[in-house]
Amino acid sequence: MRKYIPEDTIRRLSVYLRNLINLKKIGKKIASSKEITISLNIQPSQFRKDLSYFGSFGKRGVGYDIDKLIEHLEKIIGINKKIKVILVGVGRLGSALLRYKGFSLLNMEIVCAFDNDPKKIGKVIDGIEIKDIKEMKKVLQKEKIKVGIISVPSSSAQEVAQYMVNSGIKGILNFAPITLNLPKNIFIKHVDIPSELGVLIFKLENL
Amino acid sequence: MRKYIPEDTIRRLSVYLRNLINLKKIGKKIASSKEITISLNIQPSQFRKDLSYFGSFGKRGVGYDIDKLIEHLEKIIGINKKIKVILVGVGRLGSALLRYKGFSLLNMEIVCAFDNDPKKIGKVIDGIEIKDIKEMKKVLQKEKIKVGIISVPSSSAQEVAQYMVNSGIKGILNFAPITLNLPKNIFIKHVDIPSELGVLIFKLENL
Repeated sequence: MRKYIPEDTIRRLSVYLRNLINLKKIGKKIASSKEITISLNIQPSQFRKDLSYFGSFGKRGVGYDIDKLIEHLEKIIGINKKIKVILVGVGRLGSALLRYKGFSLLNMEIVCAFDNDPKKIGKVIDGIEIKDIKEMKKVLQKEKIKVGIISVPSSSAQEVAQYMVNSGIKGILNFAPITLNLPKNIFIKHVDIPSELGVLIFKLENL
Repeated sequence: MRKYIPEDTIRRLSVYLRNLINLKKIGKKIASSKEITISLNIQPSQFRKDLSYFGSFGKRGVGYDIDKLIEHLEKIIGINKKIKVILVGVGRLGSALLRYKGFSLLNMEIVCAFDNDPKKIGKVIDGIEIKDIKEMKKVLQKEKIKVGIISVPSSSAQEVAQYMVNSGIKGILNFAPITLNLPKNIFIKHVDIPSELGVLIFKLENL
């Protein structure tokens, strides 16, 4: 068991990584913590603190070797090899996620989608085949996939989540606006769009 | 200036509210903190602590009057009246958000969308008109809208965000995977889908 690492720290690793990849693209080789964080609205001290959970990187007075830090961060997050992901529920949001281009920079790829609607099964969206949900277990075993995205309606999300877990999924990114009840060893992240909007509205009214 | 309230507490208010509305729908009138939280994977003590930031609700040994608590929570979050929202960028994700049905339960409504693509301007998606981005200021003033959603590509998100702020937007829900640099009085929430997936992958690899 590792020491406790705040979830916000883990989330920011992807943000730093994406920024470093963009700095590399424009030809930078070395960057200071200030250069890495200035466009992120994050304090350089926060960046250094976040990194310190994972070891010692960069040289005082010199900065960070961008190539090496990219390599380190990819390894820490677990995306130094391509991570294959499935998506379940090819409705409006699901279709948009299949076409979303933001995953590849972080070495993530939706390789297969599932639905139970015969009209959708067999179709291909942006190169991703939609399969019958009954084939999930076979696909997960063959492709060694452990992570899935849920974009089904709230009414079927719990049932679908349980089915995914029974088929071998260990981590779920849930877009349905309900709380999933799953065994404690399953990791769940909830992207709750109306609640995020609620936070904004509260702040506008109160702060 | 109010006392400090954790952002997670504010976010959970919407989760409680949604659950209370569903309990009301199935005919419940009174609920204990356990009944309210059991399907949410939240401890009753957390629920009571979250509420305590805003006053005293419910009666010891009796429970919470669901109607009244719904009313209180809507007022606290600021959604006791319908909150109108705009969306900018009617691409794949933007179109899906226009069709997304999860806002209305929390009294939020996307009333207008904007794009700069002449092929999209004038179209209507699920009753929501797509207008020229140049008309934003007029619409915001007329409809008294302060909250906007950004679903444009990363490359134009900063420029669009600045334009929204110049047009009168005070709170932004950003779906573009970049950090926005805006004046400190603007509230920003970032829905960073790849980074959330990164948190899941990290946990699967490390915990």
